[in-house]
Amino acid sequence: MAVYTDITDGQLKQFLTGYSIGALTSYRGIAEGVENSNFMLHTTKGEFILTLYEKRVNEADLPFFLGLMQHLQHKGLVCPLPVLRQDGAMIGKLAGRPAAIITFLEGTWPRQPGIDHCRQLGVALAQMHVAGADFRLQRRNSLTLADWRPLWNKCADFADKVVPGLVKDATSDLEYLESNWPRHLPHGVIHADLFPDNVFFLDEKLSGIIDFYFACTDILAYDVATCVNAWCFDKDGTYDLAKGTALFEGYQSVRKLSGDESEFLPLLARGSALRFMLTRLYDWINTPEGSLVIKKDPKEYSSKMAFHRNVKSSAEYGLVRL
Amino acid sequence: MAVYTDITDGQLKQFLTGYSIGALTSYRGIAEGVENSNFMLHTTKGEFILTLYEKRVNEADLPFFLGLMQHLQHKGLVCPLPVLRQDGAMIGKLAGRPAAIITFLEGTWPRQPGIDHCRQLGVALAQMHVAGADFRLQRRNSLTLADWRPLWNKCADFADKVVPGLVKDATSDLEYLESNWPRHLPHGVIHADLFPDNVFFLDEKLSGIIDFYFACTDILAYDVATCVNAWCFDKDGTYDLAKGTALFEGYQSVRKLSGDESEFLPLLARGSALRFMLTRLYDWINTPEGSLVIKKDPKEYSSKMAFHRNVKSSAEYGLVRL
Repeated sequence: MAVYTDITDGQLKQFLTGYSIGALTSYRGIAEGVENSNFMLHTTKGEFILTLYEKRVNEADLPFFLGLMQHLQHKGLVCPLPVLRQDGAMIGKLAGRPAAIITFLEGTWPRQPGIDHCRQLGVALAQMHVAGADFRLQRRNSLTLADWRPLWNKCADFADKVVPGLVKDATSDLEYLESNWPRHLPHGVIHADLFPDNVFFLDEKLSGIIDFYFACTDILAYDVATCVNAWCFDKDGTYDLAKGTALFEGYQSVRKLSGDESEFLPLLARGSALRFMLTRLYDWINTPEGSLVIKKDPKEYSSKMAFHRNVKSSAEYGLVRL
Repeated sequence: MAVYTDITDGQLKQFLTGYSIGALTSYRGIAEGVENSNFMLHTTKGEFILTLYEKRVNEADLPFFLGLMQHLQHKGLVCPLPVLRQDGAMIGKLAGRPAAIITFLEGTWPRQPGIDHCRQLGVALAQMHVAGADFRLQRRNSLTLADWRPLWNKCADFADKVVPGLVKDATSDLEYLESNWPRHLPHGVIHADLFPDNVFFLDEKLSGIIDFYFACTDILAYDVATCVNAWCFDKDGTYDLAKGTALFEGYQSVRKLSGDESEFLPLLARGSALRFMLTRLYDWINTPEGSLVIKKDPKEYSSKMAFHRNVKSSAEYGLVRL
């Protein structure tokens, strides 16, 4: 939640001469998004989001992220649409950073997702997986199996101080995942970060998906597993079978999961929990005390790793194969 | 720039049932304002700003701040207007905090104020001073002369490390100001924080003044002196006589400054520079390293203190008495 790069009104007006979106009437920095600087623009033609891509985002990945939004929109999914510059480009330069303008989506994200939210999320996720099948660009997941061990090596010394017993658990999980990762499962475009704050609802209907800046080409069922982790546990850490059941029903109403996908789901969910535990642990250790960034507790995800370790079958998540 | 208190969509929808501003379609945290949490709301009836007042704001002061905006609007000044609740109240409670909704003002604040911005600012400042004359509430300035010494005592030990020589300069300035503060000058409602980021322009015309959360009852010319400091120095620290001249011409086209006000302006400007140096120094020392809050350099204001120390007459600021 931050604006890392501020921009002057003069810079912005100059930048906007490259677009056909009317005259600027106001802009405000938005306190959302931990990777980039985001501004809400008002112009005489409507509302837009301006994003300045900060150093953590690789400029070479922008055509994938923005092209994907365009592709998904054309396929009928609601997500922000990159606004083209007059010269046809999607990306410009502002205050020394790559910058893009995307359309503004109405809606609010559910702070307390319920069963029906999970069902609608499942539908949208599967629609995204299907719609992404003929997207022509590919992008390697930069936070997948091969990246976990280097990240873990940077955190392991401190891990037991944050979560007692974590060193033993994470080490054995990592070994198990490295030996058993189901590389043969169907791949495609995944969102890879589809937490509730990236899904908008309006009048209780899913109104759009945002923030494709972790999207990549990877195992589709891994994306489902990430949603299980992000949507189907209650605040106290217990798995909510009704939410899981709804998520899978929604998903499979659009795309059926195979026997293999179902079989490996506990392993994928354990991997996804490890991935989010690792980045949270890294940030936990590396974010200065007193900083305004709200640190997310890695414990939430080490508990989820433990939960998945004990799951014998995807039926325990509420998955009924069709 | 922060959102200190997040709110759930459920809490917000419940809160909005107390208002007649339509149905919520979206809300986003705004990365502006260092004291409170601000959200931009979209509803089916338009756009609004929701503010949650954090601990640094005294709840007992809210009727002054919000009542003042209402008063000034009724007098024809453009500033945000508090939206009344259905029960007529201006303040409600949300997420355990006092909260209010105000109207959204279009416009952008000038990152590089020019001569004409200064002239328009002067006009608006004088209009505010005149319009405030019959506002019935009073509020003591909580960052005036009497408050500077306690603040200085908390920072003095570290001051020379931040700005070499500051201890000697600030100590003697403080003594001088305490002995010579012109308590007899005309008092009234002052904004007390009218920096460029609180003044919006649209198509190069001043379109509104925001952020009245330092407003109070104090010496009117002190408010002018604060604007001199905030608007009339160039980036390299030199005083811009053309900007000063324009500011005073604008101001005096609405309200003439008296001989006394003119005479004491260098002292008031020195006091105002000390006040902003002190709060910046305090924050400089007390903000953790690596925090996302951008620390403002106290040096900028210790240099301004030095400048004002050498001013012999307000003519050096560009003030020509009418």
